[in-house]
Amino acid sequence: MQAEILSIGDELLIGQVVNTNASVIAEQLGRIGISTRRVITVGDRKADIQQAIHLALSDSDLLLITGGLGPTHDDITKAAVGEMFNLGMEFNEQAYQNCLNIFERRGVKMPDSNRSQAEVFVGCTVFQNTKGTAPGMLLKSPTGYDGKYLVIMPGVPSEMQEMMRVSVIPYFAPLSNEFIKHTMLMTSGVGESRLAEFIGNEQEFLTEGSTLAYLPHSTGVRLRVSTRGRNQADVEQENASIVKTISARIQRFLYATDEMSIEEYIGKLLHERGLTIATAESCTGGLIAHRLTNVAGSSAYFKQSFVLYNNESKEHTLGVRRETLEKFGAVSEEVAQEMAARCLEKAGSDIAVASTGIAGPGGGSEAKPVGMLCVSIVTGEKLHHASKTRTLTFTKDRLRNKELFSQAALDLVRQLLMPTPD
Amino acid sequence: MQAEILSIGDELLIGQVVNTNASVIAEQLGRIGISTRRVITVGDRKADIQQAIHLALSDSDLLLITGGLGPTHDDITKAAVGEMFNLGMEFNEQAYQNCLNIFERRGVKMPDSNRSQAEVFVGCTVFQNTKGTAPGMLLKSPTGYDGKYLVIMPGVPSEMQEMMRVSVIPYFAPLSNEFIKHTMLMTSGVGESRLAEFIGNEQEFLTEGSTLAYLPHSTGVRLRVSTRGRNQADVEQENASIVKTISARIQRFLYATDEMSIEEYIGKLLHERGLTIATAESCTGGLIAHRLTNVAGSSAYFKQSFVLYNNESKEHTLGVRRETLEKFGAVSEEVAQEMAARCLEKAGSDIAVASTGIAGPGGGSEAKPVGMLCVSIVTGEKLHHASKTRTLTFTKDRLRNKELFSQAALDLVRQLLMPTPD
Repeated sequence: MQAEILSIGDELLIGQVVNTNASVIAEQLGRIGISTRRVITVGDRKADIQQAIHLALSDSDLLLITGGLGPTHDDITKAAVGEMFNLGMEFNEQAYQNCLNIFERRGVKMPDSNRSQAEVFVGCTVFQNTKGTAPGMLLKSPTGYDGKYLVIMPGVPSEMQEMMRVSVIPYFAPLSNEFIKHTMLMTSGVGESRLAEFIGNEQEFLTEGSTLAYLPHSTGVRLRVSTRGRNQADVEQENASIVKTISARIQRFLYATDEMSIEEYIGKLLHERGLTIATAESCTGGLIAHRLTNVAGSSAYFKQSFVLYNNESKEHTLGVRRETLEKFGAVSEEVAQEMAARCLEKAGSDIAVASTGIAGPGGGSEAKPVGMLCVSIVTGEKLHHASKTRTLTFTKDRLRNKELFSQAALDLVRQLLMPTPD
Repeated sequence: MQAEILSIGDELLIGQVVNTNASVIAEQLGRIGISTRRVITVGDRKADIQQAIHLALSDSDLLLITGGLGPTHDDITKAAVGEMFNLGMEFNEQAYQNCLNIFERRGVKMPDSNRSQAEVFVGCTVFQNTKGTAPGMLLKSPTGYDGKYLVIMPGVPSEMQEMMRVSVIPYFAPLSNEFIKHTMLMTSGVGESRLAEFIGNEQEFLTEGSTLAYLPHSTGVRLRVSTRGRNQADVEQENASIVKTISARIQRFLYATDEMSIEEYIGKLLHERGLTIATAESCTGGLIAHRLTNVAGSSAYFKQSFVLYNNESKEHTLGVRRETLEKFGAVSEEVAQEMAARCLEKAGSDIAVASTGIAGPGGGSEAKPVGMLCVSIVTGEKLHHASKTRTLTFTKDRLRNKELFSQAALDLVRQLLMPTPD
């Protein structure tokens, strides 16, 4: 089964809003084996909408439209579709009640203009909108396009996503004649090209219906293994076998086979083992602490953080020795190591991580260039008083350097905590 | 002049990559008065590419294509365009040298497959690619589409953006018969609907060629005033007049009339006035410090930060009194105020900001629900020992609450530092 997506809205054509809806829909369809052939984005113009619908339903089996379902005069999706297929409208009581409930919850009287949102095409299948006021609709075999499907959804991302999950995917999954299985391999502490070297020639282990995608990000490279086929058991077995082969080759860097951030992974391990963590940050400016505390429940293991942006505070607040600062400079492995050690003591945590470096754009020198990071991890009694310090150099702009610095620090924690493979 | 955008690449159709290129191009074109009528995204299939080119050049004056220019076999944009217009290829020495240089800078020998990247269409205008290996091309009046323009650019965002800036925009700006002026009004500390109340009925002051767009974000609501017209002086005068009217109505919340984050604005004022800042953070977990230190040069005014995630560290590291913590609870105005006051002393800064609250999803109660924030600002001698504490409640998820908490804290700093209007 092949699909197309039509996104409607002037805001998408002036660069104000990036079309994330189309990506979400394509990704969701892909999971049930439906491929997306084309995405068209047009403004709130009837002729352009109708032309795009014609094109899509001529070439593909299914068209999903988002946007232009609001109550204002520039929302013309319903008018364009209704006119094209000569459809009458009828009042949908459930959609109306839903609309009333939403306004009631907000403590606001519903404006009359919203009543029209409960009007749906005669004979369509209504997809109720649990997150907003405009219902979705499904038309089977619209006039002139026998055997084709047309789905209309609201453009608000949260509403569309919920409708996809609750109604659209369950409706079309049984109609799809393909199965697809994706597995996400989460890695950290290794770049894309080095990862490719470890994995080697993928043609040796990839089957005909399988692909391997590298998705690099400052928070680590994710690998997606996708397998397609007609038989669900075969697809799953094939996918699992490929994942097993790759996993064995990248074991040291692989921390999860499900979408999971490294801070969530670290949080899970700290929680399971009853350990606590603290940070002492110079160049990361609080970003390591921010990332660790993005995880729900992190107050159970995150104790505190010292963000120290000058020598004075490193010395007075944390107790880094003036001699160390003067002898080696603030950006040095020696200072990083002392910051971690003093942080461990002051915070009374089991693990302390420290960062000192040069995020840029200013402050670099030949010996200590912009992008240079010294990162250190120190552990207490429960983890056998260990210590590890590294110097790394990155070459991005200030914000990306900060991200990469924080990632390097979190990766040291991952390496420390990750169970060794059997 | 009316444009269309064609984005090419399988990765755009499986949800792997969001099509941000189209938004960037549309936004850039809008700035020179060229409107975008439609965006089409197709995979690496010749027939789909050619069908889309036909559609776009039939309906509009200019088509900009991105993607599919790489050296591998799945990059077929050149083949599709060449076949459609029966174009020969020629070798472009400058593009070849550029390609060689890029590999040399990376310290890598150029693979032979890259030589084909220097092949361009006979008679086209070449847009050199200063950030990558594939040159851009411009075709004027391609066979069958008299008076139309076709631009081909690489799909790598940084390469495309630079080519837009250096070549495409300067080429088309003189051909556009419209002028457009955008002004961005940056606000903070006020929501979209309240801002709309202050601004009042926009029909009273918006001219026919002008629009006002509300762009809400957790870092504040931006307002974009856009004016279009045939005469540049008129357009600029009209735009300035509307900006003046709106500015007068929202003075208290308006901190800049150019794209600028609140942390950049705060940094600018601190720098100008020779003041320093420090933070004491509980529920924001280091995010306020992270945002302040995202600004280049922030080491001149940002001193340090204490991230304190439990009572023990609030007491021992910062010196918040145990009685205050016990009597009022960690999430209270009293504790926020003490955190700020102790932070000011310990850091020796001119300003200290403190946050304590409940980011969620757990930890809320009836009296102190998830989303509740107590935020406090305290100043030293240079700023007359002032103090201000507020309680606010937000209703988002953990990450969004943290963003809104940090924004509320930074907004207190903005209010303190912003010069009063004349």
